[in-house]
Amino acid sequence: MPEYETVGKRVPRVDAWEKVTGQGLYTADFRPKDMLYGAFLLSPLPHARILHLDTSRAEKLPGVKAVLTAWNTPSWRFGPFIKDQTLFPREKVRYVGERIAAVAAVDRETAQEALDLITVEFEELPAVFDPLEALKPDAPVIHEALSTYPGVDPAVARGNLCAVTRLERGDIQEGFSQADHIFEDTFRTSMTQQCPLETHVTLAAKDHGGHVTIWSSTQNPFLVRSVIAEMLQVPLNKIRVIPPLIGGGFGSKTNYELEPYAVLLAQATGKPVLLAISREEEFYRSKPRHPCIIQMKTGVTREGILVAREVKLLFDTGATADPGPSMLAPTIVRGPYRIPHLKVESSCVYTNKIGCGSFRAPGGVASAFAFESQMDIIADALGIDPRELRLKNAVREGDLSSPGQRLDKVGFIETIERATAQANYEVRRIELARENQEKQGKNKRRGIGMACGEWRLSGGRSSGAWVKMHEDGSIGLSVGSTDLGTGAYTVLVQMVAEELGVPMEEVTLVAADTEITPYDTTSGGSRVTVSMGNAVRRAAREVREQLLELAAERLEARKDDLVIAQKQVYVKGSPDRALSFRELSQYSHTRGKGPLLGKGSFTSPLPTSLPTYCTHVAEVEVDVETGEVRVLRVVAAHDVGFAIHPTNLEGQIQGGVAQALGHALLEETRFDQGRIANASFLDYKIPSSQDVPPINALLVEVGDEKGPFGARGIGEPPIIPTAPAIANAIAHAIGVRIKELPITPEKILQALRQGGRQKEMT
Amino acid sequence: MPEYETVGKRVPRVDAWEKVTGQGLYTADFRPKDMLYGAFLLSPLPHARILHLDTSRAEKLPGVKAVLTAWNTPSWRFGPFIKDQTLFPREKVRYVGERIAAVAAVDRETAQEALDLITVEFEELPAVFDPLEALKPDAPVIHEALSTYPGVDPAVARGNLCAVTRLERGDIQEGFSQADHIFEDTFRTSMTQQCPLETHVTLAAKDHGGHVTIWSSTQNPFLVRSVIAEMLQVPLNKIRVIPPLIGGGFGSKTNYELEPYAVLLAQATGKPVLLAISREEEFYRSKPRHPCIIQMKTGVTREGILVAREVKLLFDTGATADPGPSMLAPTIVRGPYRIPHLKVESSCVYTNKIGCGSFRAPGGVASAFAFESQMDIIADALGIDPRELRLKNAVREGDLSSPGQRLDKVGFIETIERATAQANYEVRRIELARENQEKQGKNKRRGIGMACGEWRLSGGRSSGAWVKMHEDGSIGLSVGSTDLGTGAYTVLVQMVAEELGVPMEEVTLVAADTEITPYDTTSGGSRVTVSMGNAVRRAAREVREQLLELAAERLEARKDDLVIAQKQVYVKGSPDRALSFRELSQYSHTRGKGPLLGKGSFTSPLPTSLPTYCTHVAEVEVDVETGEVRVLRVVAAHDVGFAIHPTNLEGQIQGGVAQALGHALLEETRFDQGRIANASFLDYKIPSSQDVPPINALLVEVGDEKGPFGARGIGEPPIIPTAPAIANAIAHAIGVRIKELPITPEKILQALRQGGRQKEMT
Repeated sequence: MPEYETVGKRVPRVDAWEKVTGQGLYTADFRPKDMLYGAFLLSPLPHARILHLDTSRAEKLPGVKAVLTAWNTPSWRFGPFIKDQTLFPREKVRYVGERIAAVAAVDRETAQEALDLITVEFEELPAVFDPLEALKPDAPVIHEALSTYPGVDPAVARGNLCAVTRLERGDIQEGFSQADHIFEDTFRTSMTQQCPLETHVTLAAKDHGGHVTIWSSTQNPFLVRSVIAEMLQVPLNKIRVIPPLIGGGFGSKTNYELEPYAVLLAQATGKPVLLAISREEEFYRSKPRHPCIIQMKTGVTREGILVAREVKLLFDTGATADPGPSMLAPTIVRGPYRIPHLKVESSCVYTNKIGCGSFRAPGGVASAFAFESQMDIIADALGIDPRELRLKNAVREGDLSSPGQRLDKVGFIETIERATAQANYEVRRIELARENQEKQGKNKRRGIGMACGEWRLSGGRSSGAWVKMHEDGSIGLSVGSTDLGTGAYTVLVQMVAEELGVPMEEVTLVAADTEITPYDTTSGGSRVTVSMGNAVRRAAREVREQLLELAAERLEARKDDLVIAQKQVYVKGSPDRALSFRELSQYSHTRGKGPLLGKGSFTSPLPTSLPTYCTHVAEVEVDVETGEVRVLRVVAAHDVGFAIHPTNLEGQIQGGVAQALGHALLEETRFDQGRIANASFLDYKIPSSQDVPPINALLVEVGDEKGPFGARGIGEPPIIPTAPAIANAIAHAIGVRIKELPITPEKILQALRQGGRQKEMT
Repeated sequence: MPEYETVGKRVPRVDAWEKVTGQGLYTADFRPKDMLYGAFLLSPLPHARILHLDTSRAEKLPGVKAVLTAWNTPSWRFGPFIKDQTLFPREKVRYVGERIAAVAAVDRETAQEALDLITVEFEELPAVFDPLEALKPDAPVIHEALSTYPGVDPAVARGNLCAVTRLERGDIQEGFSQADHIFEDTFRTSMTQQCPLETHVTLAAKDHGGHVTIWSSTQNPFLVRSVIAEMLQVPLNKIRVIPPLIGGGFGSKTNYELEPYAVLLAQATGKPVLLAISREEEFYRSKPRHPCIIQMKTGVTREGILVAREVKLLFDTGATADPGPSMLAPTIVRGPYRIPHLKVESSCVYTNKIGCGSFRAPGGVASAFAFESQMDIIADALGIDPRELRLKNAVREGDLSSPGQRLDKVGFIETIERATAQANYEVRRIELARENQEKQGKNKRRGIGMACGEWRLSGGRSSGAWVKMHEDGSIGLSVGSTDLGTGAYTVLVQMVAEELGVPMEEVTLVAADTEITPYDTTSGGSRVTVSMGNAVRRAAREVREQLLELAAERLEARKDDLVIAQKQVYVKGSPDRALSFRELSQYSHTRGKGPLLGKGSFTSPLPTSLPTYCTHVAEVEVDVETGEVRVLRVVAAHDVGFAIHPTNLEGQIQGGVAQALGHALLEETRFDQGRIANASFLDYKIPSSQDVPPINALLVEVGDEKGPFGARGIGEPPIIPTAPAIANAIAHAIGVRIKELPITPEKILQALRQGGRQKEMT
């Protein structure tokens, strides 16, 4: 591996100072002159006809500057795949929390008071909350006009079924005919909330010249710009979107939950309007993870070779389709295994609940919980060590991925080996089994479980970057990415510094302002390091080339004979025939070809690409009397390709494991007639520092040249295999298999009460 | 002339809305959290040794956050040519108004109170205020260490003489030997103030990561960045300079009067610090126009052909050299006339007064007052019509400019013809002379006078621009220029819209933020339209080329066969084989070569270039009893090359004439022992709407392809020939010649008392 100066090092984060000192500004820190506060009137009913809506008293309240409803806003249909959303409902509400009206007022209290003055008469309609119920022929229909919506596939959509995706590889019947054993299981995962520390917040202003500026906590400034331009029917140059610091996203900020409303309120009032929603409202707005039912049928030979798999996934998308139709699940549910015959059907169904959306590895968490739980079921049944079973079937270089791409570099087996070695998996499996035997009569049992995962970059194909060299040779880097807290900015600066051979301190980043930075699709889909990293590197290389050309001209040398080192260009073998970056840049700025700028872009050939693999091992302790599970330790090995910033990567892995712990044991958005029953951190528990065990993050580096310096995208994968690793560890500890997340004490006790017999959930 | 869609039209200004509605933000409108207010302790003495400086009481005042003096700030020497300045004096003060200390406090009042608590003990030194006195061998020396300063020419500098520039063309002795008549006159011009409506104002902040951000009313954000980086000894990427809206500059904001202090106060306090100086202090800080003494000796044949000119210019630069050594005067003082033999010596001398600097056409106003006054003196003496004399000697295409460039397109004679025709100059000269004869005994006399001018672009060689095409084909334009109120931004947007064939509304400008826009030297020297305009056009053309390449690829056509119109690229003759800008840009962004960006730059081959010519005619009425002069009308014809925005140009011309009216009749910074005696708009009179007569601005369009669409730079020239035109009109009206500006009633009465005999001023 080449020697690097900056990448691969545990350098300080570029945003460290502003964050630790509190100097950094988040969207809600801005207070432009005359700013108004916006608030929403939310539907209290899950499904109801609107008979009458009266805003007149609210409008008359002193301090109220605008009241918006379906009657005075554009009748604009939107949605990323199926255009099933409108700004406000005109005829009926479809979920508790749907926005019926928005107000802007001089302060929060007045805005709230105005909401109380709006009266709505409803006629309640029968509602449906369960996706299986929703598919029944006599279920209440949530979108009567579904077949007419843009984006819908009329061959598929009917009733509350809004989208179906299918994938078939090989010949599934032939596959099952080769199997000696067939395993059929049904798994369920829950609706989990992203819970970023910063709720959704947007500030919008419109000037008299018709230019709209939006400060927003968004992962997608360029998408927000397009959406607002479409809503207002103006060209993109009229809209500027600037994300200030962002307090976490995890996919919840890939939407545009507030921006259209903030803009319309700003337009109606002529003043800047802030929309900053409460934690409770955040539970209604975050577009959480889809609950999913996974029916998985897998055929295996007696030697433990997987030969066929048929999967039906049912995603409960709530009242809006959002990205539901695009879940990566069909191409993920095979798992990181060679399965020649595969058939997947993924359906998305409407219910009268909040819409679901993107949450770190959407579709991946449900898929992996199913296939990795089933791997252990298979291993147990066949009497094969779970590690061994995985190694036997693991994908390798030269195999095809399930969407059909040839796999180049694959570090999967390395992750199995590293994680299980570090966790002492094989020895502990035996030790703990023996201990549990010996402890008969005591209430604590321990177990160890492993699980693997596969993920690919997604979220959009294109990233652009510019690298500007200032007159003194120092650097400005301009990218359209946001940093959700991941350390992405640091990594991008590292790459530019490395490519040009300058210290990181001489590179300043300007990021994510649609007016001034180049386009990027999103900061999501684990794509920033790879997609933007490639763009950034190319931009830096273009500056290198420009420096070499300038130096060749001025040193009267051939470009090929020039070397760059120590911020100088010199003639190979003649270090005194040299020009510094400062000299070259100064010359170009004032006498030559003008300011130096390198452009770089990366366009992925496929919507998803560059697979990454990982293995997690968890050790747990289960209290068989209380059903309580304590996770004692997690080892997580990921093929990161090349660790540009090892500390960042370890942080991502540890954060993903911690978040997945919530999925495994704690988290579920519960509903009572469509109303969220636990819309607060008191009732919706996420893992605290008390719950999170030591996490060993192991960085496997099987570089793939498609990524910058070989790096892969690691934002999402760490959340994928933790829940099944824990489920497998629990099964190892107490001999019962829980197939439904979260694995609560109640479920464990119930399973234990059923005498350790495996409980079928459907 | 080709037909244009956008350039050449009187389109609305892009900054009209924000200015007329008051929504636009100037530097002093920013109020970051915890902002402190800075203020300066100014020297009350013109020349004195500092014996003792005590800031301890000020430091202890509650609310005071920092007190800076020479003892706790960098001992950094600066100055654009001669490094004769320090942040604060340590040993002695050299002028009234010199900054001895700076404080930052929680409010203005506390800052002011702190200043009162600082005690300074001085030992007064003899001072010198007159430049001729200052040159005497026994004059007090202002900079004892002058010969050691970087930038000084030790072969020239001695005593208070800091710089001398010489220019010689032909053989001056030979030239005078060919002359039939020799005219020798001495002229004087005054120290006039730029008086922008917005005084100097800077806000600086430094974050814990060491990044400095400066919002400042500056014409030179990139220069300010370099200067601050030099002072702090950090690379340029650590400094970001952002000029918000600017309320006028006229050259006074090409310096960096406040920025270093604001940055040091921000650094010392850890808080943002605002420095916004009062109108009175502005008189001390604006670096006004150098007073000048011009000795002009011109040799003429009896036919009125100018054959030789020898000129000595003496610029009184005050206590700091600033741009004094760089005055364009030597290359301007020939005037727009063929004079084969020329010798010029321009000297710059220190006095114990405020430093002088750049004010719209620095050196040009003094030069033109001299040579155009003398042209009328010559015409009168030889009995040649002044218009005729000018036409006889006027430079023409193919002549050399006085710095030696070959003149290509020259619209000079056209300006003479247009202005004199519009003013009916020849007829009015005779009519008014007759009327004045007939009015003998009445106290009002009228006269008409003309004067011409020549000017060239200056202020730096290099400009860069980027044109970004958004995904929908609309445009972002990025430039490092500022708009001082001239309409420059509108003109740049017009050019991009024209070049790409899009409506102006689809182009949004981002300007003058050193971190995000490309480099530009300055918005001064009449250079924005030409230098930045060329850069902007090239950037737009690069986008055109990129669109053509993309379309050629996708339409499978040869690039040469493609045509752009109506935001589409189509195959010549097959308008249905077309792709819209939106389609092409969308494709490039998401599947192709990434975000579209065109880079353009313009680097002038010479420090000054592209001459412009003009002719003004003024009609005046002089009250011979009171000495009062009323200007009745001014006609001003300028060769603008091509009028990209006719209204803007007319505005520039009218503004220049109005400002020059002040020079001609009203304005002079008066001193009393080094203290400005009229540092307020009550005492320092600038022309009001009551004083400004109708001004006919005439646009001559002799295009020069070196400028964009043929345009020339017109920011400075309109201030040049108004004063001599008025002086010539006064001479025509009352028969006496005033050779010293401003032409006050007192001077007129005195001259009249001397019986109409021409008064020599030296």
